[in-house]
Amino acid sequence: MSKIRIAVDAMGGDRAPYEIVLGALEGAREHDIDLILVGPQASVESEVAKLDTSSLDLQIVNAPETIEMGEHPMAAVRQKKDSSIVVGTRLVKDGRADAFLSAGNSGAMMAAAFLLLGRITGVERPAIGTVFPTRDGKVFLIDVGANVECRPQHLRDFALMANIYVQQVLGVPVPRVALLSTGEEDEKGTPTIQEAHALLRGAEHLNFVGNCDAKDIPLGFADIVVSDGFAGNIVLKMGEGTAEVVLQLLKREMLHNTMTKMAAMLLKPGLKRMLRRLDYEEYGGAPLLGVNGVSIISHGRSGQKAIRNAVGVGKRAVEHNLVQLIEREMA
Amino acid sequence: MSKIRIAVDAMGGDRAPYEIVLGALEGAREHDIDLILVGPQASVESEVAKLDTSSLDLQIVNAPETIEMGEHPMAAVRQKKDSSIVVGTRLVKDGRADAFLSAGNSGAMMAAAFLLLGRITGVERPAIGTVFPTRDGKVFLIDVGANVECRPQHLRDFALMANIYVQQVLGVPVPRVALLSTGEEDEKGTPTIQEAHALLRGAEHLNFVGNCDAKDIPLGFADIVVSDGFAGNIVLKMGEGTAEVVLQLLKREMLHNTMTKMAAMLLKPGLKRMLRRLDYEEYGGAPLLGVNGVSIISHGRSGQKAIRNAVGVGKRAVEHNLVQLIEREMA
Repeated sequence: MSKIRIAVDAMGGDRAPYEIVLGALEGAREHDIDLILVGPQASVESEVAKLDTSSLDLQIVNAPETIEMGEHPMAAVRQKKDSSIVVGTRLVKDGRADAFLSAGNSGAMMAAAFLLLGRITGVERPAIGTVFPTRDGKVFLIDVGANVECRPQHLRDFALMANIYVQQVLGVPVPRVALLSTGEEDEKGTPTIQEAHALLRGAEHLNFVGNCDAKDIPLGFADIVVSDGFAGNIVLKMGEGTAEVVLQLLKREMLHNTMTKMAAMLLKPGLKRMLRRLDYEEYGGAPLLGVNGVSIISHGRSGQKAIRNAVGVGKRAVEHNLVQLIEREMA
Repeated sequence: MSKIRIAVDAMGGDRAPYEIVLGALEGAREHDIDLILVGPQASVESEVAKLDTSSLDLQIVNAPETIEMGEHPMAAVRQKKDSSIVVGTRLVKDGRADAFLSAGNSGAMMAAAFLLLGRITGVERPAIGTVFPTRDGKVFLIDVGANVECRPQHLRDFALMANIYVQQVLGVPVPRVALLSTGEEDEKGTPTIQEAHALLRGAEHLNFVGNCDAKDIPLGFADIVVSDGFAGNIVLKMGEGTAEVVLQLLKREMLHNTMTKMAAMLLKPGLKRMLRRLDYEEYGGAPLLGVNGVSIISHGRSGQKAIRNAVGVGKRAVEHNLVQLIEREMA
């Protein structure tokens, strides 16, 4: 049997191309896949030349254009047909790659997946999920930005798709599913949330544990938290921002004087463990759920480690037939 | 001139009555106000008897009923006319107190203020603001739960009211006002956010600095962040929850072994400074903006310090004629 083939956008993300290419090569080796790097031929070749590619089955596919972070997603995808995001997504559509991953413009990734791969039958709104660290484990948030406004049945669909992803790819046998609201009481939240609550309560195949408050998320109240993309984006960003600020304040106190610097040295292994726990790079990225193909969206700030891990996410999504399982669930 | 009279709900909040009464007495002394404690006469008297009330002008107003945290706000306020929240709010309406503060059911505080004090002319939707710590200062979030859905003009009104509060009571001469969205670009967010953006851009008296991402909030991007009550609640709860979890993880690492325990001792003064910076109790509470009277809502978990500081918030709101200033701005 031939290996799984994963295409990586060499130009996507704040740290492209060097760290992306490095992470992709490491990921290919670690996860034993065939790698396709997508980007301007000469630039990608010169990056690859700096690195060790021994024992790798590596191919470069030329994509001379690049979609920048600030560009309007749909317009950019329509106009820049030779961009890495469009070319990479087309590789999946044409069956030349099993998955495509990018840390570039996530809106453009979504637009390309919509236009080229299309939606799975029964899915009105594909959604972006992401894995987020909690105190003692992790949570899968969906949607974190694809749909700023949602109807109740969209939220139910997100839960069903996420349930398959978390079971199959993250290996949680019976994920606890919660609906984000302003409190745990059933009647809290907007009319949309109240209706979604009833739909989730009635959904077979789901271990729905009720509404959750944002405060419950970092404590690990659920394995899956469902919300529209506006609220989900706020959860994600507020979590990242707050953790960063608390750590900055801690660092400031540790640099206070000789005694505190000594304390920081004694705590170093523990702090490292803690940072690793809070590090989104551990999770690499997450697929756009609901499209006809595996399209992995990584954080714009992804470095080498995130991309290496995102290659693993892509491999597991392909191995576990994520698209086919979602198709069956939503039929 | 007679002193400012502040009524405090002796029964409101997780730590009532002891810590609330203690904090109220301390606050009255520190801020030189006349204090009215509202609650079941006998219970309040027995709490007060344990404490030092010398040099204080203290009155107890009997309110034999209590509205619990889980009760439906509007129904509870209509039925429990002798509850501390209804009795306290009525003291403000009748001019027998200049402000009322409670750490109890915030929905009931809002309902009581709506029904008894009424809205300021020109304000369609009163809103709850709260002060939240940032890396190097603080931010005023509005709304954090009064209105789960808002129209664009409501968001504009929140900004105008918050602007007066932050200028007059928090003492920031020209507050930077931001609108919460999913990114800093003008076109991000829902249609409501886009329309609110245009209204804020056009508002005189406002130093509107544009949209903000939730990640910008803890970094101190703005002095005022405007959102509907659903998103604002998520910002508040996610910030609290994340900070708590990071500190729990840090504590876990500090208890790891003898060396890390020693490090923790060396860092103790710094950690204390840091906790003080992140402590919502420093800010005490914030008024419900847009109602005809000063009604201060404190966090349900408020302890002695929060209540002591909330008394100061109430005093400043009265001293600076907050209600009259909002009335003039909204006319």
